[in-house]
Amino acid sequence: MSGQENISESVQADFLKKNTEYAATFRDGDLPLPPARHALVLACMDARLHVEKVLGIKNGECHCVRNAGGRASDDALRSIAISQRLLGTKEVHIIHHTDCGMLTFTNQQLATKIREDLGVDVGDRDFLPFLDLRESVLDDIRTIRESPLVATGTKVHGYIYEVETGKLKVVE
Amino acid sequence: MSGQENISESVQADFLKKNTEYAATFRDGDLPLPPARHALVLACMDARLHVEKVLGIKNGECHCVRNAGGRASDDALRSIAISQRLLGTKEVHIIHHTDCGMLTFTNQQLATKIREDLGVDVGDRDFLPFLDLRESVLDDIRTIRESPLVATGTKVHGYIYEVETGKLKVVE
Ligand SMILES: [Zn+2]
Ligand SMILES: [Zn+2]
Repeated sequence: MSGQENISESVQADFLKKNTEYAATFRDGDLPLPPARHALVLACMDARLHVEKVLGIKNGECHCVRNAGGRASDDALRSIAISQRLLGTKEVHIIHHTDCGMLTFTNQQLATKIREDLGVDVGDRDFLPFLDLRESVLDDIRTIRESPLVATGTKVHGYIYEVETGKLKVVE
Repeated sequence: MSGQENISESVQADFLKKNTEYAATFRDGDLPLPPARHALVLACMDARLHVEKVLGIKNGECHCVRNAGGRASDDALRSIAISQRLLGTKEVHIIHHTDCGMLTFTNQQLATKIREDLGVDVGDRDFLPFLDLRESVLDDIRTIRESPLVATGTKVHGYIYEVETGKLKVVE
């Protein structure tokens, strides 16, 4: 057995151990499927942004969509459409953050790294990096507001989370 | 001002109030960008699945990607590729869950609802619903393992989370 397998099994073992502790005091088994606050949060996958904790969201309150950057990707729009049409959410809160990995590369650089590491040519695929945090939030607000999959008049709010301070700043 | 605007502003006001409390005791300002546990979790956006809490993940430990269903969508593969190539994660943990909204509709039904509600024709777009929870986890494990964007030999684990009990079950 390789060292990598040991590491991986140890993460799984830890998840299962911690989950046993979580389930032991679990009392939320009767929460309904639709989010109680009728809201969806779209945030970066960053390991330092525990969305529910940072925003004080309780169990069952908000949908939470996350991807590299917290971008309004086509798949995020799929999730928002399902959330709105089938589960009654009415607003979107977008969170990007300081020290984001998406500020550190260009599509061309990542394509080169993927070719070198994996031997795969990704062509001109857009991995959705950005150069400016505030602009990326504003771009994604606009993308969601203008998407035909999103209900007209949906409130879309944008924020920057500071990983250095734990503070959330509204982007206006 | 409409009632809807009031509701939306109240969610934002609550997020900012709760975040002020969070930031007041924040002590993690020096965490590095790469996830400490070298792992990425891919889970459903469901409001009852607070991933870090359910798995006992600490700040800075794991990337967390979420979408409708926790599916291995093309955009999830984008996030995984960035996570692996630029930020050193080595394994993926996929979490689907009981009572998932993705079990409640077909593409055709959602297309009809979008046409009726929004006046938009989505054609034969796949919103990635599923009929069987265990099969959907196995499908997504396979999709990730076989993706050219994912490093060969990446460990991919699958789970079903029970929203009724708080328990995580391994899919094998
Ligand atoms: Zn980020
Ligand atoms: Zn779900």
